[in-house]
Amino acid sequence: MIAGKYYIDKLIKESGMKKPEVLWEEDIQVRYVETDQMGVVHHAHVPVYFEVARTALFKNFIKSYAAIERRGVFAPIIAYTVEIMAPAFYEDILTVRVMPMDYSGVRLTLSYELVRKETGELLSTGFTTNVFVDEERKPVNIRNKYPEIYDMIMKVFEETD
Amino acid sequence: MIAGKYYIDKLIKESGMKKPEVLWEEDIQVRYVETDQMGVVHHAHVPVYFEVARTALFKNFIKSYAAIERRGVFAPIIAYTVEIMAPAFYEDILTVRVMPMDYSGVRLTLSYELVRKETGELLSTGFTTNVFVDEERKPVNIRNKYPEIYDMIMKVFEETD
Amino acid sequence: MIAGKYYIDKLIKESGMKKPEVLWEEDIQVRYVETDQMGVVHHAHVPVYFEVARTALFKNFIKSYAAIERRGVFAPIIAYTVEIMAPAFYEDILTVRVMPMDYSGVRLTLSYELVRKETGELLSTGFTTNVFVDEERKPVNIRNKYPEIYDMIMKVFEETD
Amino acid sequence: MIAGKYYIDKLIKESGMKKPEVLWEEDIQVRYVETDQMGVVHHAHVPVYFEVARTALFKNFIKSYAAIERRGVFAPIIAYTVEIMAPAFYEDILTVRVMPMDYSGVRLTLSYELVRKETGELLSTGFTTNVFVDEERKPVNIRNKYPEIYDMIMKVFEETD
Repeated sequence: MIAGKYYIDKLIKESGMKKPEVLWEEDIQVRYVETDQMGVVHHAHVPVYFEVARTALFKNFIKSYAAIERRGVFAPIIAYTVEIMAPAFYEDILTVRVMPMDYSGVRLTLSYELVRKETGELLSTGFTTNVFVDEERKPVNIRNKYPEIYDMIMKVFEETD
Repeated sequence: MIAGKYYIDKLIKESGMKKPEVLWEEDIQVRYVETDQMGVVHHAHVPVYFEVARTALFKNFIKSYAAIERRGVFAPIIAYTVEIMAPAFYEDILTVRVMPMDYSGVRLTLSYELVRKETGELLSTGFTTNVFVDEERKPVNIRNKYPEIYDMIMKVFEETD
Repeated sequence: MIAGKYYIDKLIKESGMKKPEVLWEEDIQVRYVETDQMGVVHHAHVPVYFEVARTALFKNFIKSYAAIERRGVFAPIIAYTVEIMAPAFYEDILTVRVMPMDYSGVRLTLSYELVRKETGELLSTGFTTNVFVDEERKPVNIRNKYPEIYDMIMKVFEETD
Repeated sequence: MIAGKYYIDKLIKESGMKKPEVLWEEDIQVRYVETDQMGVVHHAHVPVYFEVARTALFKNFIKSYAAIERRGVFAPIIAYTVEIMAPAFYEDILTVRVMPMDYSGVRLTLSYELVRKETGELLSTGFTTNVFVDEERKPVNIRNKYPEIYDMIMKVFEETD
């Protein structure tokens, strides 16, 4: 039993979805501090790379995640998975591809592929689910409360249909 | 669709396993640096908490993970999942419970529950899969190559049967 | 020219202070994620170890730093120095000693020694300056505004005279 | 007494150096994980930003720091200082300027300025000292042992005279 293995593929198959298109690609260079004594990127930095790419996606499509927070809407992560097929090394340039999985006014699920830019080798996959909440951390349906934010994110999904 | 939700329960059900016993409990106090601007622990620190508890488990049952590495056996994480039900805050004392899921000489899968110690509230669950490799990162079956390490880990699993 | 070398000793000498007493000792175990590919703790984690010890000191003497923040007083770091004499390794238990340096109602300067607990070897020294600010990040003199917080911290300093 | 305040200026004055030229400028975008519950970048990330800029400087002038490590020369940080004048926020683009301070075959001291790119506001200063060591962490004088690495770094310093 391997935690999460083939999880994304299984989900896609079970849900009858077609393999999603790539929404965004973001390049990130591995920092020395991100390596561990095995000489590779420590596994806890992979969700950080996903976050950097997600932030860039948001910045491009919906202006800025910071601006959404200033309106009192937050989007904490409530679940994520990481699979590591091959190690990333110091100074590697990584490309993170972000793909849409599921979106309602309440939750947003994205999937990710992390590849070594120079060789195209697939290093890691995973996905994340954000939930929309207010300042008291109570779930909000942004479809009703902030339809223009909802529409901005919806456009991201339509982009790839 | 929520990434990983109910994943552990589903796996247990599918595999016909009985709910595993708690192998180890480790207390960890939240550090200021681990909070983010939402005022809660950032989700990328959860696998670090799992690692701290896994290290303590190893230290107790199999002496020291560092000693295993000195013999040329490494155990990188190849997959993990994290679910966050409720936020952890600065200065909270968290208890991480580690439970055995699956073990062969090639891979080790553990599951985790993270609770706020004071209230017992379940904050997070997840699991991790380590693979055993040599210095060239090639998989090794420690059952054959390092039977005494294999046996030490096996004892951890038998402990809870 | 070495950044910061002998800085604390020089400061003590220049200021005519006597070598300060140890206020607090806190044990911290090195986490795997804190190592880098040189096989030692990465230098950026040293101020985190200082923070963990400072938090524990605050918790003991002035109840809780979190409680101070809830009253609208924050104490961001405005300066710190780190010197590394010898490396810390994975699984090492480190003892952080905190010593008082300087305190006014506006700023608090503490110095630190980091030793390997098992051997007593001095691994690192450094110091930190916190400044007291309000929610708008404007400096506040807590001596006037929150005399009971001022007195609590003052007591820490008197403890060691 | 403020830890490290005006330290760089004092060092420059005491040593009779002229204010050093900027060797390298590197842009870095603040990550969400780098913020803390005060809503600003946590102070322990500043030496990481310095490191990212130092890596980029090395990459440009001396090919790659990773390549130097493969030859068995390591350059751990033995001392650094950080001063924080103003906070950095999530999504800010920061420019890190690197300036040469001191270089021998044994040690390398660089100083840094961190500014908010959009406004030019100075947020932070600091410096770092690296020491050159071999695989056993014993100091090496690269001037004798690896004269071509010594010369490459020396060229960086001459660049700014």
